[in-house]
Amino acid sequence: MPADDSRTTELADLHNARQRLQGVGVNTPLLESPLLNEAVGKRVLIKAECLQVTGSFKFRGAWSAISALPESTRRKGILAYSSGNHAQAIAYAAALHNVPATIVMPNDAPQSKLANTRDYGADVVLYDRPGGESRESIGAALAESRGYTLIKPYDNSDVIAGQGTCGLEICEQLKARNIDHAEILVCCGGGGLTAGIALATEAHPGLTVRPVEPADYNDVQRSLLSGTRESNNHSTHSICDAIVTPAPGVLTFPIMHRLCGSALSVSDANVLVAMAIAYQRLKLVIEPGGAVALAAALFNNGAIESDTVVCTASGGNVDATLFTQALNTTLPHSFRF
Amino acid sequence: MPADDSRTTELADLHNARQRLQGVGVNTPLLESPLLNEAVGKRVLIKAECLQVTGSFKFRGAWSAISALPESTRRKGILAYSSGNHAQAIAYAAALHNVPATIVMPNDAPQSKLANTRDYGADVVLYDRPGGESRESIGAALAESRGYTLIKPYDNSDVIAGQGTCGLEICEQLKARNIDHAEILVCCGGGGLTAGIALATEAHPGLTVRPVEPADYNDVQRSLLSGTRESNNHSTHSICDAIVTPAPGVLTFPIMHRLCGSALSVSDANVLVAMAIAYQRLKLVIEPGGAVALAAALFNNGAIESDTVVCTASGGNVDATLFTQALNTTLPHSFRF
Repeated sequence: MPADDSRTTELADLHNARQRLQGVGVNTPLLESPLLNEAVGKRVLIKAECLQVTGSFKFRGAWSAISALPESTRRKGILAYSSGNHAQAIAYAAALHNVPATIVMPNDAPQSKLANTRDYGADVVLYDRPGGESRESIGAALAESRGYTLIKPYDNSDVIAGQGTCGLEICEQLKARNIDHAEILVCCGGGGLTAGIALATEAHPGLTVRPVEPADYNDVQRSLLSGTRESNNHSTHSICDAIVTPAPGVLTFPIMHRLCGSALSVSDANVLVAMAIAYQRLKLVIEPGGAVALAAALFNNGAIESDTVVCTASGGNVDATLFTQALNTTLPHSFRF
Repeated sequence: MPADDSRTTELADLHNARQRLQGVGVNTPLLESPLLNEAVGKRVLIKAECLQVTGSFKFRGAWSAISALPESTRRKGILAYSSGNHAQAIAYAAALHNVPATIVMPNDAPQSKLANTRDYGADVVLYDRPGGESRESIGAALAESRGYTLIKPYDNSDVIAGQGTCGLEICEQLKARNIDHAEILVCCGGGGLTAGIALATEAHPGLTVRPVEPADYNDVQRSLLSGTRESNNHSTHSICDAIVTPAPGVLTFPIMHRLCGSALSVSDANVLVAMAIAYQRLKLVIEPGGAVALAAALFNNGAIESDTVVCTASGGNVDATLFTQALNTTLPHSFRF
C-alpha cells in the first residue's frame, strides 16, 4: 500500500524530519577550495552529500519516510523502485529498523549500486529498463502482493521533507559564514532534493534555488519555462544515471514552480570535468548525477549572477571505470591539474 | 631565523591554536560506512583530514605557527621545507596573511603538490632529493639570506599544537557518539599529528593513540620499542611520500614515547587497497601517506584490541595516475566492490 504521500510538505515537516534524523544521518560539511574559487571567479561552496550515509542525500528522505510510518505498517516491509541511490538508502534505513525491504532496480544500474543494495540486506528485483518495462507497475504489483509500503523516490511528502533537511543545514552553514545572498544549484532528477531545499530556503529572500539537469534530460528546465510538467524523450543516453527521470514529480513540481529560479543544464562532457575538479580540489568522489551542479558553476558561469554559489554534490556512488574516465578527461586550461 | 620552536607543547597551546583556527580551518567530519564496519568487524571512524583546507591536516599546524608569530616577524616572510603537504599549507596560510613564502621542495614531489604550492603564491625552490641534497641546510641558508622565519614541518611547538586541534575535534566527536574507548590510528611521518593528537587525548584514559607508518619507513615503530630515536635507511621507495621522514622529531618523539601505544606498519600494496576502500565506501580521495591508518585497520586487525578504531585520513593530495592505480587494485574478497 502506498504511504500517505500526497500531503503538501511544509517547513515544519522538514524540522520534524530533522529531529528523526538526529544521530542517524550526517550533517554534511560545506566545503570550498581557494584555488577553485580563484578559477571560477566566485565563491563556490560544495554541500558534500556524497558523504551522507549510503553515499547520497537519499538517505535523508528514506529515513524520514520510513521513520514516519506507524510501527504496525513499517514492520510489514518496505518497497521502493530506484536506479540506485534511493535503493541503497531505503535498503539501509529498513535494515536499521529491522524490517524487510524489496527494491525494484533496472538491470542496467551501476554494479556498485546493485551490490550495495543487496549488501544492505534488501531483496533486489530487476526489471528490463532498456526493454521498456515499467518500474511503477512492477512496484505497485509487488507492494500489493507482499503487503509492503511503497516509498516513492520523490513523490512522497515525507521524502521531500527529509531531503529538505539538507537545505536547513545549508541555511545554517551560510549564516555561519555571514552569507545571505547565494544561488543554490541543486542536482535535479524528479525534484525531491530541489523542492526540499527550496522549502528550507523559502524564508531567506537572498537565497535562490536553481535546478540543474543533464542537457538531454532537462524536463524540469522546460517545465519551469512552460509552467506545466514536461516529459523527456528517452532516445538519448546520459552518464548521469541518478537523475535521469521521465518528468518532474507531481508533488515536487508545484513547489519548484512556486519557489525556484530558472534551471540550468550541462553536457556529460562537462560533468566529467566537474568530477575531476571535485577529485582534484575537494578530495571528494562525486558520481555524474551528483556533479551536474558543480559542472554548471564551472561552465554556465555567465548565467549565475550571485558572487557565491552553493553546489550540492548529491551523491558519490560511481563505478571505478567511469570515475577513471573522469580523471583522464582533458581539463580546460583554467582548471588544469 | 627559526621560530621559537623548542617549547614543550601543552594542552593549553592546542586550545589557543584552535581559537586562532576558528573560521579559517575546517572542523572535519568523522565518517563511517556500515558496509565497511561489517567487513572489518569493528566500528571504523574516519577523521577526514583530506577535507581540510589545502587537502591535508597540515593547514592546522601551518596556520597555528604563522598566526602565532609577532606581526613584525611574520611580515618579513616565511620559509619551509616539505615534500608537499606542509608546503601547500604554509603557502596558503602565508597568502592569507599577505606575507611572502618560500618553500624548499624535492624535485621528485608529486606534480600536483608542486603546482598547488606555486598556485597558492609561494616561491618554490627545488632540491635534488634523490641526489642526496639536504633540505635542512638549504632551508637554513635561505632563511638566513632572506630574513625569513623557518617553520619546520613537525619540530615546532606551535605546529604540534595546531595538529593537535584535530585531536580535540576527535575527542568531541567521540563524546557525541558516546564512545569512550577507542584506538586512534594516526598516519605518522615526523610525528607532528601523532604527538598533537596524543596531547589532545591525554586526559581521556580510554583513548589510545597508535602511530602507523609504511613498513619500510617504520622509524617511529622502532623508536618506540627501543626508547630512542631510530633512523630509516633510505634504500627503499614508498608511495607514501607524505610520511617518508628520516627519523622521529626531536620535539615529537618524547611526546609520542610518553603517550602513545605501540605503532603499526603497513605495506604499499595494502595502502592501495585502503585508498580504493576509501573511494568505494567513504567517497573520499586519500593519498597514500594518508591511507596508512585505514590500511592498518583493514589488514592489522588482529593487532587492534578496541571495538572502535578511529583512522586519520590525513591528506588527499594524490596525482591521478597513482589514484587510478589504487582503483585498479584487486581487492580482497571481503572488501570487494
